[in-house]
Amino acid sequence: MASLQDIGVAAAINILSAFVFFLAFAVLRIQPINDRVYFPKWYLRGLRNSPTHSGALVSKFVNLDFRSYLRFLNWMPAALQMPELHLIEHAGLDSAVYLRIYWLGLKIFVPIAFLAFAILVPVNWTNGTLEHSNVTFSNIDKLSISNIPPGSERFWAHLVMAYVFTFWTCYVLQKEYATVASMRLRFLASEERRPDQFTVLVRNVPPDPDESISELVEHFFLVNHPDHYLTHQVVYDANKLTKLVEEKKKMQNWLDYFQLKYSRNKSKKPSMKTGFLGLCGDKVEAIDFYTSKIDQLSKDIEAEREKIRKNPKSIMPASFVSFKTRWGAAVCAQTQQSRNPTIWLTEWAPEPCDVYWHNLAIPFISLTVRRLVIAVAFFFLTFFFMIPIAFVQSLANIEGIEKAAPFLKPIIDVKFITSLIQGFLPGIALKIFLILLPTILMMMSKFEGFISLSALERKSAAKYYLFIFVNVFLGSIITGTAFQQLNTFIHQSANEIPKTIGVSIPMKATFFITYIMVDGWAGIAGEILRLKSLIIFHLKIFFLVKTEKDREDAMDPGSLGFNTGEPQIQFYFLLGLVYAVVTPILLPFIIVFFGLAFVVFRHQIINVYNQEYESAAAFWPDVHGRIIAALIISQLLLMGLLSTKGAAQSTPLLIALPILTIWFHRFCKGRYEPAFIRYPLQEAMMKDTLERVRDPNLNLKGYLQSAYIHPVFKGDDDDDIDTITKDCEQESELVPTKRHSRRNTPVPSKYSGSSPSSLPEVVQEEP
Amino acid sequence: MASLQDIGVAAAINILSAFVFFLAFAVLRIQPINDRVYFPKWYLRGLRNSPTHSGALVSKFVNLDFRSYLRFLNWMPAALQMPELHLIEHAGLDSAVYLRIYWLGLKIFVPIAFLAFAILVPVNWTNGTLEHSNVTFSNIDKLSISNIPPGSERFWAHLVMAYVFTFWTCYVLQKEYATVASMRLRFLASEERRPDQFTVLVRNVPPDPDESISELVEHFFLVNHPDHYLTHQVVYDANKLTKLVEEKKKMQNWLDYFQLKYSRNKSKKPSMKTGFLGLCGDKVEAIDFYTSKIDQLSKDIEAEREKIRKNPKSIMPASFVSFKTRWGAAVCAQTQQSRNPTIWLTEWAPEPCDVYWHNLAIPFISLTVRRLVIAVAFFFLTFFFMIPIAFVQSLANIEGIEKAAPFLKPIIDVKFITSLIQGFLPGIALKIFLILLPTILMMMSKFEGFISLSALERKSAAKYYLFIFVNVFLGSIITGTAFQQLNTFIHQSANEIPKTIGVSIPMKATFFITYIMVDGWAGIAGEILRLKSLIIFHLKIFFLVKTEKDREDAMDPGSLGFNTGEPQIQFYFLLGLVYAVVTPILLPFIIVFFGLAFVVFRHQIINVYNQEYESAAAFWPDVHGRIIAALIISQLLLMGLLSTKGAAQSTPLLIALPILTIWFHRFCKGRYEPAFIRYPLQEAMMKDTLERVRDPNLNLKGYLQSAYIHPVFKGDDDDDIDTITKDCEQESELVPTKRHSRRNTPVPSKYSGSSPSSLPEVVQEEP
Repeated sequence: MASLQDIGVAAAINILSAFVFFLAFAVLRIQPINDRVYFPKWYLRGLRNSPTHSGALVSKFVNLDFRSYLRFLNWMPAALQMPELHLIEHAGLDSAVYLRIYWLGLKIFVPIAFLAFAILVPVNWTNGTLEHSNVTFSNIDKLSISNIPPGSERFWAHLVMAYVFTFWTCYVLQKEYATVASMRLRFLASEERRPDQFTVLVRNVPPDPDESISELVEHFFLVNHPDHYLTHQVVYDANKLTKLVEEKKKMQNWLDYFQLKYSRNKSKKPSMKTGFLGLCGDKVEAIDFYTSKIDQLSKDIEAEREKIRKNPKSIMPASFVSFKTRWGAAVCAQTQQSRNPTIWLTEWAPEPCDVYWHNLAIPFISLTVRRLVIAVAFFFLTFFFMIPIAFVQSLANIEGIEKAAPFLKPIIDVKFITSLIQGFLPGIALKIFLILLPTILMMMSKFEGFISLSALERKSAAKYYLFIFVNVFLGSIITGTAFQQLNTFIHQSANEIPKTIGVSIPMKATFFITYIMVDGWAGIAGEILRLKSLIIFHLKIFFLVKTEKDREDAMDPGSLGFNTGEPQIQFYFLLGLVYAVVTPILLPFIIVFFGLAFVVFRHQIINVYNQEYESAAAFWPDVHGRIIAALIISQLLLMGLLSTKGAAQSTPLLIALPILTIWFHRFCKGRYEPAFIRYPLQEAMMKDTLERVRDPNLNLKGYLQSAYIHPVFKGDDDDDIDTITKDCEQESELVPTKRHSRRNTPVPSKYSGSSPSSLPEVVQEEP
Repeated sequence: MASLQDIGVAAAINILSAFVFFLAFAVLRIQPINDRVYFPKWYLRGLRNSPTHSGALVSKFVNLDFRSYLRFLNWMPAALQMPELHLIEHAGLDSAVYLRIYWLGLKIFVPIAFLAFAILVPVNWTNGTLEHSNVTFSNIDKLSISNIPPGSERFWAHLVMAYVFTFWTCYVLQKEYATVASMRLRFLASEERRPDQFTVLVRNVPPDPDESISELVEHFFLVNHPDHYLTHQVVYDANKLTKLVEEKKKMQNWLDYFQLKYSRNKSKKPSMKTGFLGLCGDKVEAIDFYTSKIDQLSKDIEAEREKIRKNPKSIMPASFVSFKTRWGAAVCAQTQQSRNPTIWLTEWAPEPCDVYWHNLAIPFISLTVRRLVIAVAFFFLTFFFMIPIAFVQSLANIEGIEKAAPFLKPIIDVKFITSLIQGFLPGIALKIFLILLPTILMMMSKFEGFISLSALERKSAAKYYLFIFVNVFLGSIITGTAFQQLNTFIHQSANEIPKTIGVSIPMKATFFITYIMVDGWAGIAGEILRLKSLIIFHLKIFFLVKTEKDREDAMDPGSLGFNTGEPQIQFYFLLGLVYAVVTPILLPFIIVFFGLAFVVFRHQIINVYNQEYESAAAFWPDVHGRIIAALIISQLLLMGLLSTKGAAQSTPLLIALPILTIWFHRFCKGRYEPAFIRYPLQEAMMKDTLERVRDPNLNLKGYLQSAYIHPVFKGDDDDDIDTITKDCEQESELVPTKRHSRRNTPVPSKYSGSSPSSLPEVVQEEP
């Protein structure tokens, strides 16, 4: 077991690597050539122009102002300065609320850490159990519950603290839920007019032999919502067309690349091979080849588009129905339309950018089958994923490779390469699997049939959290594969399981501390460097970019990645809550993680990330539910641990804790969750009335008519290559902004915040 | 263990006692004097007049037509003759669907029994395991799975049968759910105009310092449902008034009794004592005493009524809001009204008779606390109810009584009385508890705050089923109190529990067979006799009845009692499904129960019971869910049993069964449950349109104005004593009936059934 010294060394290494990352970031960030990598958000919002336009040639690429190197950490206070209201306006509510998860971690764990250090650490430290026993121990263990002799009266302190921590966590959670719910409602209320406020997605339109789907939808809603129905948009099955458009875009990229190459070296026309990866096949002239390819694709696209328009079979049995008022839409979204509850299913339309078009036409029965299939598949993925990996590992040995590819034998026989393969290949299968895991989980969620990107990310996050819980948390505590654990648990009694896990918990504290430092500290610091984006951006700039627009396209701002990020945060909540009573020394490490991550992600959200969609914090019930789950797990494990410590008289008192926590969860669910699912009629009516007064001559039909057209149909001209990806970004640019762009640094806006005195002078510092 | 002969003897005894009950019923039923006990339903519907009005004096009381004694079982075919559509019209959908539960039992178990006897019984019988072993066994066991040697290939037959039985059960369940859902929708659609179609109950109206609740409700709905709001009815806190009215009614009863006594014997004015139970206190003249009491109460009632009308504090923060159209009400009931999801809670108003007025004013937070309290209380009631009973039993011994009441010593010292107390008292505490249990569970549900009688009965039924499952099913299989079981289960591993129970199951078959015969066969036969109602009716006739109206009041038709009846049926489903594969010999006994109960309850529903409310079969999702639960329990127990039988290769194949069953449940829930919770807008719009055409000048406001007045306010004249209980019955009498009353036998109606050829000539036979 690691001693305090070992931990100290590990901490030093990780702090150093975090420092190196920050330093590298500080240097790279202020180079004008990297400006689009580290500040893409401002470009996308149109608030920043390329710094390479003016000035001397050198200063176009390298920052020569040496004073700016001295202030290399001053992005941190800058990131914290932008007030929340402004942040919501700047980056959307999703991002602002996402940051609140880190902040919530601080709010929960800072007071808990103070209390634990003031009370539990002295209680643990002043025992001599470990010193008088023969087991090896470290100073870390002297601070933990392991140092208390069995049957001691001191366990009462831990019991009381478990209650205090639970009540504090629930209190903070409840406050936070209330705040987020009211933020969401305020955001929805203060929003400009948006198409999704008036629109409902209707699915499973029943087939009718006499009427087309469009007529059917119109008649149904004219009959059943006569005073409110306005118009509707049918949904086309444009999956093939999308594929063609994407294909064309790829070809266009290659064409650009060869044209640039040719323009630089006019002497030689670039050529290429048509086969696999350009390695084999006939040699052709590249520019001609791609030009003809693109022409062919353009024709195909036109034909496919025509086909979709004319063929009634490409109209899917789903439709976006718009209403005259928000009230009408709110009513339709919340009610059952038809006798048969599996047809005419209505729900709020997602934001146009948030729609996952592929899944709009799945019928009800297929949906229930898909859920079952995925539930079973996910179970096997979680508990048996080691089996295929072990199989791959057994194949990927030297003998296997030699047998499969005898011509490689001379290379493999080299000693160095043999040992590389032996040491590297088994690990790489697992590593590849873990890198692919979020993608696999996302594919599973897509197969399940959710119809918005936000829902897909939420469901993937739930799956990822379960996977982490089983394979990282339980897997680290009880060594062995998940399947072995499952087997153990099935053969153990219900109250043995918390004991088995609970007993191992104090012993694993040092492991988790190093885990937090590597994954949390250095990992987060690495995030800010955006190494991958940096390299890809410069490659693109070098090979592809001709115009300013290309330069814009080369930026890859990325987004928050709720499906991978949130489960990782939740893992820290779980560790913190589990170890708060058992080994409080772990808490400061978690607090550092939350603090660091808060600053880093706040910076990234302000300067880098560009959210694809805006779900108005629809993910908060999930976040809340998982923290509650972590709380209950921590309580059960503490019960298991204490029951082995001979604290028989105090353990039963802990039973009330999970019951109270579950009840608290149900209370919060009833009190706040509807704000995330439904849209109150009072609110809708208020906005309708206001709008009627303010804008009596509004042509709503014109406004809504083309809001929910499939993105490939939007730009019907030759520009359509960009429409798919650019569409939503363009829309966000249309939001009127009160800022004006300035050379390199955006000026602070005169936004109508509630506290004008707290406005920061300069929101983003001068580089 | 009981042999086949023992079972035969027990069956003979129980068949005999059932036969005796039927015989007694046949004789008592055709006596004119009992007519109101055995045919109250017809009186209440106004289709039958007192048979004692005409004819000779003797034949008024005793049936002298000896031919009618010969046909003593002909009520059975008569009960089966009324077609279902007619039954719905006659007794309501609730009763008709309740009967379908028994019919469902037959549909599930008759084919299963045939299959089991054709395949499993030969498979089990042709083994010699038990004969070659040393354990004692009976012929029953030779038919069961116990007779198969461990590790035999024959277990494949049981495995396949488990799949076949599950699929058959699910198939029947799905068909039945679809049928009931469409029956419910058809019933709701074909119904006459009813106030609850237009009315929504709004609860948790937030307090407002400037406006009264009535004004607040009006303004809120005028603003948020401007096109649909019609009127509203505030809810008064009339619990005290109700108590006073009930008190007056009791006094009136006593006054009637003494006046009747006086009119029979004019020589002596009746007197009574004012103290406890009329045993002690001052002696007063009874008629004067009660007259003055009633006068006093009448004044109190008037004052209280005035007070409620004038005092704004007696208006509860709840209201019945009526809309101009069914569409408007359907919209309001299904949507969220306000930003804060805990105020302005709307839901469908229950039928006026179905409202449980007492609970209308419980605020949201109090509701969640109450649910928690009841959940904990119910847990303790289920697992620890033996503790207080054991305590009472320990008190109720001879020494305790002698100490508490020394003056009883001479009596107690008599040998006979001693042994009576010793043998009787301990048992009676448990018996009293079990008799009181449904009442206790109903009180718990009331405390939880449900607002309609139907919901109260449903929730009580769920609790009662859990209690029966733990204490009767598990309690019989694993002997010991529920608490001991709980303790065992906690200390056992998750896959040991089904093994422990599964192994004991075949051994308990004979016990459950005798249980079915006593509780199911004889109990159901006893139900038809209505002994309690018979005695009370004749006592009332003798002591109280003066007028025809009194005679009507003396009838106690009773009702189905969903909260006690349904869990008992469910217990038979559980037994049948658990034993279908293990000991198929049990199935015929269950089939007899279902058949007998179907006939008996059909007769009772046609002739006796008068449902208090009509929930349009809202209970079916509960029924369905509990059968699914029984199915899953049976599968888990079979897995446990097989895994101890050395059938290792076949047991894992059973794991798919519970997963498929749970999935099937979720599918049914999504497909059919909305029909029981929501009201489709299409339906509402259709009825609205029809009504607008048919009845364009309808004064809906006048129709709805007083529909939801608290029953004590309805009759404002002196008649108010009866209003509470009579109100709903009167309403049901207002339903226009196409029948005309005839002396003793109702004529068949010319109802518009779908198959006129199947009309029975005489629905109810001539006595």
